[in-house]
Amino acid sequence: MKDFDNFKSSGDYIQSLERGLQVIQAFSQQNPSMTVSEVAKKTGLSRPAARRILLTLEHLGFAEAQSGHYSLTARTLSLGYAYLSSNNIWSIAHPFMREFVDQTGESCSISILDGTDVLYVARVSTKRIMSINLDVGSRLPAYATSMGHVLLANLQKDKLEAYLESVNFEKFTDKTITAKEQLLSVLEEVRKQDWGGVDQQFEEGLRSIAVPIRNANGQVIAAMNCSAHAGRISKTVLREEFLPLLQESARKISQAIVATNNPSYS
Amino acid sequence: MKDFDNFKSSGDYIQSLERGLQVIQAFSQQNPSMTVSEVAKKTGLSRPAARRILLTLEHLGFAEAQSGHYSLTARTLSLGYAYLSSNNIWSIAHPFMREFVDQTGESCSISILDGTDVLYVARVSTKRIMSINLDVGSRLPAYATSMGHVLLANLQKDKLEAYLESVNFEKFTDKTITAKEQLLSVLEEVRKQDWGGVDQQFEEGLRSIAVPIRNANGQVIAAMNCSAHAGRISKTVLREEFLPLLQESARKISQAIVATNNPSYS
Repeated sequence: MKDFDNFKSSGDYIQSLERGLQVIQAFSQQNPSMTVSEVAKKTGLSRPAARRILLTLEHLGFAEAQSGHYSLTARTLSLGYAYLSSNNIWSIAHPFMREFVDQTGESCSISILDGTDVLYVARVSTKRIMSINLDVGSRLPAYATSMGHVLLANLQKDKLEAYLESVNFEKFTDKTITAKEQLLSVLEEVRKQDWGGVDQQFEEGLRSIAVPIRNANGQVIAAMNCSAHAGRISKTVLREEFLPLLQESARKISQAIVATNNPSYS
Repeated sequence: MKDFDNFKSSGDYIQSLERGLQVIQAFSQQNPSMTVSEVAKKTGLSRPAARRILLTLEHLGFAEAQSGHYSLTARTLSLGYAYLSSNNIWSIAHPFMREFVDQTGESCSISILDGTDVLYVARVSTKRIMSINLDVGSRLPAYATSMGHVLLANLQKDKLEAYLESVNFEKFTDKTITAKEQLLSVLEEVRKQDWGGVDQQFEEGLRSIAVPIRNANGQVIAAMNCSAHAGRISKTVLREEFLPLLQESARKISQAIVATNNPSYS
């Protein structure tokens, strides 16, 4: 953060770009449509600053207004698509993820750590109704998810400490880990066994297991999980039947990524 | 464009936000990683302006640099996801699209008109390897696609004229329509029969049919298509077997959208 503060006070920093991206990200399932005041409140910007950004986004076709309520337009998809089409490393994983889903009948995702969240970068779902909440681009708190545990367990010590300093624990269910010591002991176990499992710590009725995806140097670059309804899939099935298949998929994906020789993942 | 020019000269316009979003969209499959100069050239910005934007994006975690080459990070997905999670109108279409794909064994997409392009807002694919090129957020020129024909055929007269004034025709294949008169006569037919079909006008070996999706007032709000390999699916099969199924799906999706009472689609 020190670096960023230095950069902010340099002549190179464009504050209005940061604010504009903040405003776009302020929209969500809970806040699909907001007034200028609501956007100002949600982002911490002044009302005039929020208004100018919304007007600019509207004129650029990224937002639209109806009776004083702003919402995003589909053009915003172009921004995420710019990444998807230019960094297609995770498209390599798709056939292996699809194979896993065909074998198990359960959904499977890949995520990376972004700030204190896991950020979904690929997902293959079995559901007939696509779950928007867990689509590519969605974020979940790392401490409450199996992929988060795998990614945190493989962080360098200073980065893990920085994570623990910045994270705010929230109790989503009775089982959510909200104490640092408890999280650290779970991460220790995840590191030893090289996989993580979470049982209804984020949402009642949802359990998942996750394994690391490594680059050529053995560094963990992402995590891959299998999530299932707790009522349908027992912990034993997850661990004894699905885990070996998930580990095999992750191994194949690692190999395929190494084969691309992409410098971002070496 | 007059309106936008007026807005640009007002005190409310934030030029650096427009430029920042331009830079993000400059990255693509053809240009996954660019130097400051390359970004400047691609966007028409000055080198110092491009540099400041890239540095800001880097410090905000949306871009990363390796040996002077910038690329986007997965955090960019959050921007597209903000729209996907807040405007989940198209998630309503997914079960119907899935049903169509199960019936026909071919991929199916929904798009809207954005500028002179069709912009994909939903897609259900049969392919084992996800086709990144036609994922949600991708754009294709309207005049060369069946969804584009359906959307253009249902534009108000002044909007169609504005489209014809701003479009630049490119000859993708021998069959691409590149003359206004020819396009207008095709659109006339599409309007009459209420569906559009394109045979290898955008890409050799690819043919597709498309139908409109309407709101409660009968206005066309999107188009839905079925695209298939020309070598596998004949024009007759597309028209006689798949078209009625596609029309039925679009009708169900229209009904489901009307039922949501979403003011953006009324």
